[in-house]
Amino acid sequence: MTEAVNGEIGVAVLGLGNVGSQVVRIIEESATDLAARVGAPLRVRGIGVRRVGADRGVPAELLTDNIEELVSRADVDIVVELMGPVEPARKAILAALEQGKSVITANKALLAVSAGELAQAAEHAHVDLYFEAAVAGAIPVIRPLTQSLAGDTVLRVAGIVNGTTNYILSEMDSTGADYASALADASALGYAEADPTADVEGHDAAAKAAILASIAFHTRVSADDVYCEGITKVSPTDFVSARALGCTIKLLAICERLTGADGQQRVSARVYPALVPLDHPLAAVNGAFNAVVVEAEAAGRLMFYGQGAGGSPTASAVMGDLVMAARNRVQGGRGPRESKYAKLPVAPIGDISTRYYVNMNVADRPGVLSAVAAEFAKHEVSIAEVRQEGMVDEGGQRCGARIVVVTHRATDAALSETVAALAGLEVVQSINSVLRMEGTTE
Amino acid sequence: MTEAVNGEIGVAVLGLGNVGSQVVRIIEESATDLAARVGAPLRVRGIGVRRVGADRGVPAELLTDNIEELVSRADVDIVVELMGPVEPARKAILAALEQGKSVITANKALLAVSAGELAQAAEHAHVDLYFEAAVAGAIPVIRPLTQSLAGDTVLRVAGIVNGTTNYILSEMDSTGADYASALADASALGYAEADPTADVEGHDAAAKAAILASIAFHTRVSADDVYCEGITKVSPTDFVSARALGCTIKLLAICERLTGADGQQRVSARVYPALVPLDHPLAAVNGAFNAVVVEAEAAGRLMFYGQGAGGSPTASAVMGDLVMAARNRVQGGRGPRESKYAKLPVAPIGDISTRYYVNMNVADRPGVLSAVAAEFAKHEVSIAEVRQEGMVDEGGQRCGARIVVVTHRATDAALSETVAALAGLEVVQSINSVLRMEGTTE
Repeated sequence: MTEAVNGEIGVAVLGLGNVGSQVVRIIEESATDLAARVGAPLRVRGIGVRRVGADRGVPAELLTDNIEELVSRADVDIVVELMGPVEPARKAILAALEQGKSVITANKALLAVSAGELAQAAEHAHVDLYFEAAVAGAIPVIRPLTQSLAGDTVLRVAGIVNGTTNYILSEMDSTGADYASALADASALGYAEADPTADVEGHDAAAKAAILASIAFHTRVSADDVYCEGITKVSPTDFVSARALGCTIKLLAICERLTGADGQQRVSARVYPALVPLDHPLAAVNGAFNAVVVEAEAAGRLMFYGQGAGGSPTASAVMGDLVMAARNRVQGGRGPRESKYAKLPVAPIGDISTRYYVNMNVADRPGVLSAVAAEFAKHEVSIAEVRQEGMVDEGGQRCGARIVVVTHRATDAALSETVAALAGLEVVQSINSVLRMEGTTE
Repeated sequence: MTEAVNGEIGVAVLGLGNVGSQVVRIIEESATDLAARVGAPLRVRGIGVRRVGADRGVPAELLTDNIEELVSRADVDIVVELMGPVEPARKAILAALEQGKSVITANKALLAVSAGELAQAAEHAHVDLYFEAAVAGAIPVIRPLTQSLAGDTVLRVAGIVNGTTNYILSEMDSTGADYASALADASALGYAEADPTADVEGHDAAAKAAILASIAFHTRVSADDVYCEGITKVSPTDFVSARALGCTIKLLAICERLTGADGQQRVSARVYPALVPLDHPLAAVNGAFNAVVVEAEAAGRLMFYGQGAGGSPTASAVMGDLVMAARNRVQGGRGPRESKYAKLPVAPIGDISTRYYVNMNVADRPGVLSAVAAEFAKHEVSIAEVRQEGMVDEGGQRCGARIVVVTHRATDAALSETVAALAGLEVVQSINSVLRMEGTTE
């Protein structure tokens, strides 16, 4: 571990985007308060950027494109990594840790694939590695899970952890817009990036699910372990059907501890759009907000709510980590860390049991509903609710019917087989959508 | 600091009530998981009770009424104080700290008067003093405020932190019951104690407000600094008026950072029943649940929600603290602590500016509303909304009118003078109630 130089805590900030510039601003503007809380002044020693030159609103002499040199400086105690993506961030963080620097990162994509490697390097160097900002922006989630609930048994974590998709789904729900126009609105307002793939396909949420599952269940779950479906196929019709069922649709990241009949523990981590009852706390989380619901054996159900993205809220989480790491430096220690991580098996999606909503077009003639119901029965998927309505074409002629089925709990494997069989029925014209339903009490 | 004996972390639990017995149970039942998280087994060395003898569901040899001896045992590393009230808990905790034991306590009444003294003793002994369970039961609030938000500037904390009063007010709101019968229901269901004074008069919430204000603003605020009104005078009529105004009524604990025109910082900590708009997140927190809303400069608005009381949820918070303190022992350190606490002045209630709701009976004749409005104007309290309705007696005769006034923001001093002046008006028959209104965007 490096020693504080001149009684100051030296900070290197890697990346000067939306979050990085807020971090630099807060360190500057709140210097007195921060010094009192840390026990020594925080001093930005350098800011790593891809290209030095353009006016960035910070003293030019702080800027450098030599990241390797910056993280190795003797007067740097803590490295704040906000540059992403996986590389070159990984290399910079490992170099910093090897040099005895504590590291703060908001890089969920990196943590979702390399958390174990980074934690080991931090452990080896006896320094802190904090990442509160990697999940749900300003909302404290990592620290409550790793510390406040350290003596409890977490059973389930379910969250809305991606602001872009939540904005799109909220918009579709409230205006009846289709996916494409809601996405266009989100882009126009700056809620969606130029290439929105990582958000709308659920990859961003999957990275966060991997992190949440790892810390909630004290095991290593990587992004590859997370089953993931995005929101691109959710239609206005799904929202109409959801409303009729007393639900809305949310992209959820779900982490569960599964205990088999033999007592064997497994975990599940998955991301998909799901019907959520309107009286569930997550149903009221709209726009770019995030929320995480934690269910623990002794604590019961907790909810954490706030702004999940944006420069300023994310900077708040980074600053909390920075003050804690700096305080540890001043007090000559380091923060608490896990003593032991298990490697619990990850359950395949086929084993996961939820309720389902299936929306299909069928021929409008006697016996169709019976044939459809028979397929569910054959695969032992129990039906909770069925709605059938006639459809008319543009000329006003009846042209078939739509059937919406809501099931009781069934495994994904059984449901998939049912849907495949339904698609093969002569009377079924199309399977319009299959969505899961979460958060019901049944 | 004492050393772990036999590689175990020895725990003394003081008090074997609702929470204490859950803590002992969890230490026993989750022994393997906890040992993995701590890095060493937790072992209960003894349980301090007032009277040894009765069957308590724990091995009899663990029980002792000699608290002083128990907290001094060489094989005890951590003392968990769950016996309350202020004394003898204070003496036991100070003795434990002096002996180098880390201390976990849920004793809000004690912390609200002696936090400074206890923190100093912990500092002197280089041990941990944790108290997550003292505010809002299982909901992580202390750790997020002291750690996650350590680099941000907290502006305001507003919470529903007393389950008993929230149950009573929720009941009055949903059933139209009066205070006395809602209290009787709460008692019958075990939500109110035999002597409910501390809850219904707001003293319990005030102790929590003192703790929240202290940690949110890095200053010392004691229970005596907290302005406090209880819920005993809230009437069914107030709920009817609140509904008409789009509000419900909640007992709030509010902590605010006030910045004067000269830049001078002050804090305010206060507890009172207030009208809250139905679309405010706190309005939906019903029954025995708790919630805390934190507003910080960079993070924006965060909300924490969950079960605020009960043996099991409170034990969850205690266990989190216990695992953290134990892990620190095993790793040979201690948790992070504040480097410096300020002593910011506490603003008197008269300086605090909120909106008000005033409900009064007046004579039913021309010119009355004008006379009432004139008193508000005279004291420079601006009126936002007025409702007047005629009242009839049992014989169907008109017998006066009721006026409800909602003001814009005014200081408590100006409002108090207005109300005193109104009470002196010949046309005003009675001031039925004066309540504050919080959480509106105006």
